Amino acid sequence: MKIDILTLFPEMFEVFNHSIMKRAQESGRLELSIVNIRDYSVNKHRKADDYPYGGGAGMVMTPQPIVDCIKNVKENNKGKVIFLGPRGERFNHEKAQELSHEESLIFLCGHYEGIDERTRKYIDEEISLGDFILTGGEMACLPIVDSISRLIPGVLGSEESFMDESFYNGLLEYPQYTRPADFEGDKVPEVLLSGHHDNIKKWRKIKSLEITKRYRKDLYDEYILTKDDIKLLKNKKKYLKD
Amino acid sequence: MKIDILTLFPEMFEVFNHSIMKRAQESGRLELSIVNIRDYSVNKHRKADDYPYGGGAGMVMTPQPIVDCIKNVKENNKGKVIFLGPRGERFNHEKAQELSHEESLIFLCGHYEGIDERTRKYIDEEISLGDFILTGGEMACLPIVDSISRLIPGVLGSEESFMDESFYNGLLEYPQYTRPADFEGDKVPEVLLSGHHDNIKKWRKIKSLEITKRYRKDLYDEYILTKDDIKLLKNKKKYLKD
Repeated sequence: MKIDILTLFPEMFEVFNHSIMKRAQESGRLELSIVNIRDYSVNKHRKADDYPYGGGAGMVMTPQPIVDCIKNVKENNKGKVIFLGPRGERFNHEKAQELSHEESLIFLCGHYEGIDERTRKYIDEEISLGDFILTGGEMACLPIVDSISRLIPGVLGSEESFMDESFYNGLLEYPQYTRPADFEGDKVPEVLLSGHHDNIKKWRKIKSLEITKRYRKDLYDEYILTKDDIKLLKNKKKYLKD
Repeated sequence: MKIDILTLFPEMFEVFNHSIMKRAQESGRLELSIVNIRDYSVNKHRKADDYPYGGGAGMVMTPQPIVDCIKNVKENNKGKVIFLGPRGERFNHEKAQELSHEESLIFLCGHYEGIDERTRKYIDEEISLGDFILTGGEMACLPIVDSISRLIPGVLGSEESFMDESFYNGLLEYPQYTRPADFEGDKVPEVLLSGHHDNIKKWRKIKSLEITKRYRKDLYDEYILTKDDIKLLKNKKKYLKD
């Protein structure tokens, strides 16, 4: 996948030189470019913002550098232009999956008091990270691009991607334990040490159902219990000895 | 405010050396420490993760380094320990405001397949960024700490913080325009060039109401229209000549 991120603060994306994002780029599965909008300003001082018409605090990003930047990037990236902003659809896992199937994407990050309204005709879609105020679209772009990139086929190893799928069956994950078996007197549930794979699977499913019901009643109510789930919950005492 | 961020990947927080976060730290209003959990591992190879008991893909963060790290940080930070994870309450502006009033906070970022369940007794609260999968809690911590920090009194200039309040009255912001007045034949609404402050205020309020109704019906339905709003909407043709 080809992703171009258009921003006034390219240095905020240095984090993508680490971890899975780094691996994704090195393997060639992700071609990521951070493009400085300011480089497209025709203003002699490379200005990319100005005072808002009608008064008010803060600065607004001027249309010319953004529009010229989009036009230029589009020569090599045919993906849709996504603006990170509060009018947009709320980002979630389904959206991440949808976008991970695109061949290319262009993200536009607003900063200061936002973009000039006339820039919007060059934007195909707006996405919101949530109902809170950020210093700029960059802070929303980081987790969103991270979340999409890890769903690109081949970016995660087969083991890792399997985890995601099992996690995202609409339920929260079961509790995880690792060594030592006894930590400050707090022991790992016996079933996990038993080697009895079927019982482990059952224990994990019951725990996953219980945790989801307790912490995310909304997800639990949407989840459709299978016959096996109902049977498991009926006999849960048998499997939850710990 | 004092914030400690506990992570296996301190380099992912370099972005906080820029922009408003940098200013907040330089002014002394924010004391930010990025703490490497691995430094607390007593394992001779500084290991901080291990295979999950009961089998399954991925690695789980071991309890010892996390717990020792929390205990050590707590000697100088009396704030609550917040874990970034999917069981938590969804982060929003109200939560950001609540946390911005704390004297100190400790954020714990999970990575890989998460933390050992027994670590949870050292955690006071869990917060979720949204329903999607990230490479690690770091990617959720970035926007959350950004959003909280800008609400700490004095971090934003008086002008900037005014903006936030006017923006966050439960409605989306009105459209912004800046120079040039004519961009590729697309003109700034005349009222904004008129200098007539009362008309500008009315135009902006109507636009804000309309945009919210169009893009965020849920927010609009929660918003209680004032008598003035109702009057404005009745006479909107008069104010929306452009």
